[in-house]
Amino acid sequence: MEWRETLRAGDEALVEHLCQAAGNFREDEVRVAVELVVERRSRGEASGYEFLFLEEDGRGIGYICYGQIPCTMTSWDVYWIVVDPALQGRGIGRSLLTEAESRMAAAGALRIYIDTSGTEDYRASRAFYERNGYDLAARLPDFHGPFDDKIIYSKPIGASRKNE
Amino acid sequence: MEWRETLRAGDEALVEHLCQAAGNFREDEVRVAVELVVERRSRGEASGYEFLFLEEDGRGIGYICYGQIPCTMTSWDVYWIVVDPALQGRGIGRSLLTEAESRMAAAGALRIYIDTSGTEDYRASRAFYERNGYDLAARLPDFHGPFDDKIIYSKPIGASRKNE
Repeated sequence: MEWRETLRAGDEALVEHLCQAAGNFREDEVRVAVELVVERRSRGEASGYEFLFLEEDGRGIGYICYGQIPCTMTSWDVYWIVVDPALQGRGIGRSLLTEAESRMAAAGALRIYIDTSGTEDYRASRAFYERNGYDLAARLPDFHGPFDDKIIYSKPIGASRKNE
Repeated sequence: MEWRETLRAGDEALVEHLCQAAGNFREDEVRVAVELVVERRSRGEASGYEFLFLEEDGRGIGYICYGQIPCTMTSWDVYWIVVDPALQGRGIGRSLLTEAESRMAAAGALRIYIDTSGTEDYRASRAFYERNGYDLAARLPDFHGPFDDKIIYSKPIGASRKNE
């Protein structure tokens, strides 16, 4: 498997395909995922979105989108992480997250945030974040819609760990 | 005093001036405030940012920027609210917030969120939100920087109030 961090033509379609295949994203959420690709391709680093794809035999099998949170000094956010559902259980999600975490730490991140949903559809995602060291930082009831809480996870990384 | 909701040339400078005069925004925060004006002027409603200015004798003395939070059904966010510091204490902030709340409720909002900071510089802002019915929903330690927590306030409005 190989890492690719430079976006190219066709990544909009790849991201759309991966998000749709994942099965738990609504249509408007898939649209936002694709918009982040468009933003990155048109504005470059100034977009604030970093991408990392995992490829196998030249085919994208998962990706993570992350970036420093605007108006913060050391807080970063994992905006999106998706793995081809046919390949789940092979540790691809963990590889994506670990690689992104080490890049964020190198860039000065002290804390990483991940927003997700409290619904049943996201149970596996929440378990994945918890297995990877993320703690519940906040729960906002009915944030996304009725009975669809926003869950904010966070994890200290980089220099901050030395003091904890 | 008059309301104005349509942006026009010069509003970038007006927003920059009001934010700088307020005294508690960093340079990068002022830049983000101005960027929201640029976004709204170039993309219109699709930007997701609604603006409301209060004017006195044709001069902008305060404004609020708010909008529905992407990927939510009934959650709205007050992104920015600023009043000319020379005119504070006259209830202008409350007028801006109340008018925006009623417009959000009319547009289907059930809950409004306001993100702010936990530092001393924002003590008056926090007291203002609390006086206006906003409750602490979450606190994220050191989010903006060392000793600068993110504070999330929320307030139920519209139809949801009937059931509370």
